Amino acid sequence: MFRTLLTLDQVKKLIDDLGLEALDSEEISLKEAHGRILAEDVISSLDIPPFDRSTVDGYAVKAEDTYGAEENVPTYLGLVGAVNVGEPPIISISKGETVEIVTGAQIPDGADAVVMIEDTEKKDSSIVVLRAVAKNENIMRKGSDIRKGETMLSKGQKLGSREIGVIAAIGRARMRVFIVPSVAVLSTGNEVTEPGHDLPPGRIYDINAYSLAGAVIESGGKPVNMGIAPDEENQLRETLKKALALADVVVTSAGVSVGPKDMLPQTIDALGKPGLLFSGIAVKPGKPTTMAIIGRKPVFSLPGHPASALLIFHLITKPIIQKLAGRSSTEINAVKAIAGKRMFSAKGRRTFVMVNLGRDRLNKLVAEPVETGASGAITTLAKADGYLEIPENVQFIDENEKVVVTLLSSRA
Amino acid sequence: MFRTLLTLDQVKKLIDDLGLEALDSEEISLKEAHGRILAEDVISSLDIPPFDRSTVDGYAVKAEDTYGAEENVPTYLGLVGAVNVGEPPIISISKGETVEIVTGAQIPDGADAVVMIEDTEKKDSSIVVLRAVAKNENIMRKGSDIRKGETMLSKGQKLGSREIGVIAAIGRARMRVFIVPSVAVLSTGNEVTEPGHDLPPGRIYDINAYSLAGAVIESGGKPVNMGIAPDEENQLRETLKKALALADVVVTSAGVSVGPKDMLPQTIDALGKPGLLFSGIAVKPGKPTTMAIIGRKPVFSLPGHPASALLIFHLITKPIIQKLAGRSSTEINAVKAIAGKRMFSAKGRRTFVMVNLGRDRLNKLVAEPVETGASGAITTLAKADGYLEIPENVQFIDENEKVVVTLLSSRA
Repeated sequence: MFRTLLTLDQVKKLIDDLGLEALDSEEISLKEAHGRILAEDVISSLDIPPFDRSTVDGYAVKAEDTYGAEENVPTYLGLVGAVNVGEPPIISISKGETVEIVTGAQIPDGADAVVMIEDTEKKDSSIVVLRAVAKNENIMRKGSDIRKGETMLSKGQKLGSREIGVIAAIGRARMRVFIVPSVAVLSTGNEVTEPGHDLPPGRIYDINAYSLAGAVIESGGKPVNMGIAPDEENQLRETLKKALALADVVVTSAGVSVGPKDMLPQTIDALGKPGLLFSGIAVKPGKPTTMAIIGRKPVFSLPGHPASALLIFHLITKPIIQKLAGRSSTEINAVKAIAGKRMFSAKGRRTFVMVNLGRDRLNKLVAEPVETGASGAITTLAKADGYLEIPENVQFIDENEKVVVTLLSSRA
Repeated sequence: MFRTLLTLDQVKKLIDDLGLEALDSEEISLKEAHGRILAEDVISSLDIPPFDRSTVDGYAVKAEDTYGAEENVPTYLGLVGAVNVGEPPIISISKGETVEIVTGAQIPDGADAVVMIEDTEKKDSSIVVLRAVAKNENIMRKGSDIRKGETMLSKGQKLGSREIGVIAAIGRARMRVFIVPSVAVLSTGNEVTEPGHDLPPGRIYDINAYSLAGAVIESGGKPVNMGIAPDEENQLRETLKKALALADVVVTSAGVSVGPKDMLPQTIDALGKPGLLFSGIAVKPGKPTTMAIIGRKPVFSLPGHPASALLIFHLITKPIIQKLAGRSSTEINAVKAIAGKRMFSAKGRRTFVMVNLGRDRLNKLVAEPVETGASGAITTLAKADGYLEIPENVQFIDENEKVVVTLLSSRA
């Protein structure tokens, strides 16, 4: 195994070099598409609007028939019918004629402009036009919004309310999206007990399987709960094999301790080729992080401390899940704040400080460090809205310095 | 009905005065809790850690036995056993004795400190202590993270990865959450056709039912798709009645037009008491917005223009869905940017400008206005990342001015 710890940048480079790709795609209906990632470019197969349409309520006219018309010099046109929305116009107009039309309705043949209803008067079977219109006035031309053949959305885009609206607009009811990566989540350690059960003496409740399953959802994956595996090599290996068979990614975490009995890295390495990618990273917290590739599947052993496990998941596991999910871009998931107090880095290691976000008297966001030491693991989890990063070559961030805080869970 | 348009602030006041409250609660398991809203305060029923635990691998000792120990003056202690994680210690130590212990394991009776393994040597059945420890050193006291009776999370909090971790930590497997509001989404208009079907002449595809269903999900609600109701009073009334019976909120939107045939406000008002709350708002875009309360259920008629419908949904409908969902706080859903060009307000109306977010050469976020006129409805939808607000008494926002952009869909 590795003697010197890799830096976070080296770890990221190793992962990039793996060339992980999105999973296969599947076809789904638009009604189940929210939150999914497009596996195809969406190209319009029609012009939008599909016909010349009126943008106002009024009268469709030949523009030249209205030239010179004004309040004191009105023009009279013969009303020959009406066209409503949703109906193809069955009439066409000739010189001197007009047709009543509503917003969104199709312009009848022969017409090339629409006079707004406010600029007209009705007199028997005639329409009095009080204002001239130019050719194309109050008409939205066929294809002026979207041209047939235009690429509306691209592979890798996440489908939210707007994107779904765009797909509906061009009449598509089904599309290809990437399969959601399944992520097996597994806790290890003889000391952890499933919540909802009595707590035997000397034990603590399992936290990481639950918080990490939540983080999987927030990363665009689907958690597969594998429960708790005891620190016994055979059982651990069997549970890991089952996890690898069930899921695209496996995430394990130590209960709390990384004691002399921790055999996780070796057990993971023995599962298959190519095996361990790295074991240990020069970051604080999160040093005891292990990653392996078994076949094509990433397998992680995260630290036991709940906030550290969540931090390393965000730094390393989440980008991999998003890659497998086919995401082409990352979200805006950071906020600017000012440091509430001076925060020191750990010598020679990229340091991440868990922070709680509050507001000062001027309503500015302030990042207050939250203890991530051995004490207060759950308090840290409850309070840490996000983290800020201190590079290897920086000693500290000073009070009132501007910082960027990456949020641990989206607040949406 | 109302002659003068209400301002947005008047509308918000009217809605506040309704005193809408969260829906009922239900009990669910922690595994299905992600994204739900707590309907109870979560109070710890145990101390965490539940026992004094070691924060290091080493040897549990009586601190006073080590006083004076240093590299050149070591102290010898008799090793009487070992305590592992997950096991209650069955041994206790007396003066001059020590017990091997790992991180996370329970401190045995008689011990009050732990010497780190690095500060010891093993010699036969003795442990050589090379450094003195103070009382409580390397021990995390029972209850030092969380005290029994402490309130961990509050009613109204949304359950994300961290909150779920906190609930697991205190051993809870079930909790009460608010019922997710169901929101019936219904399009109206003779011109709209369901995507996936052939487009008859003169018609367009339904957009709003799809984009608004997405916006319902993004607001914490559950959309109920009611399809398209034709502009025929009896059918419209029957569909609305069905929607009211099925859902907690009803959202309708005109296909595109608000023509002379639009009978939605009257039809909604006739559904029951108290009826229409307002019809028309002094905002741009989004003026033709109607809201009614039937029994205790809000019913909306939103504008037909897809981007305007989404905007008004964000301004008025979303906060109501969040209120019914029991959310105690709103998320950070806005970013700071600079205006890409001068943007004018509409006289006397609160103006909202749909903007696309890009980056300038200095990597600053720039908000570029997107056309929201009659032309380009779908292009607007595709491009508008969010909107900025120009107050009634401001004429324009200047190029390069600092602005706050509220995001239309969360990018998470």
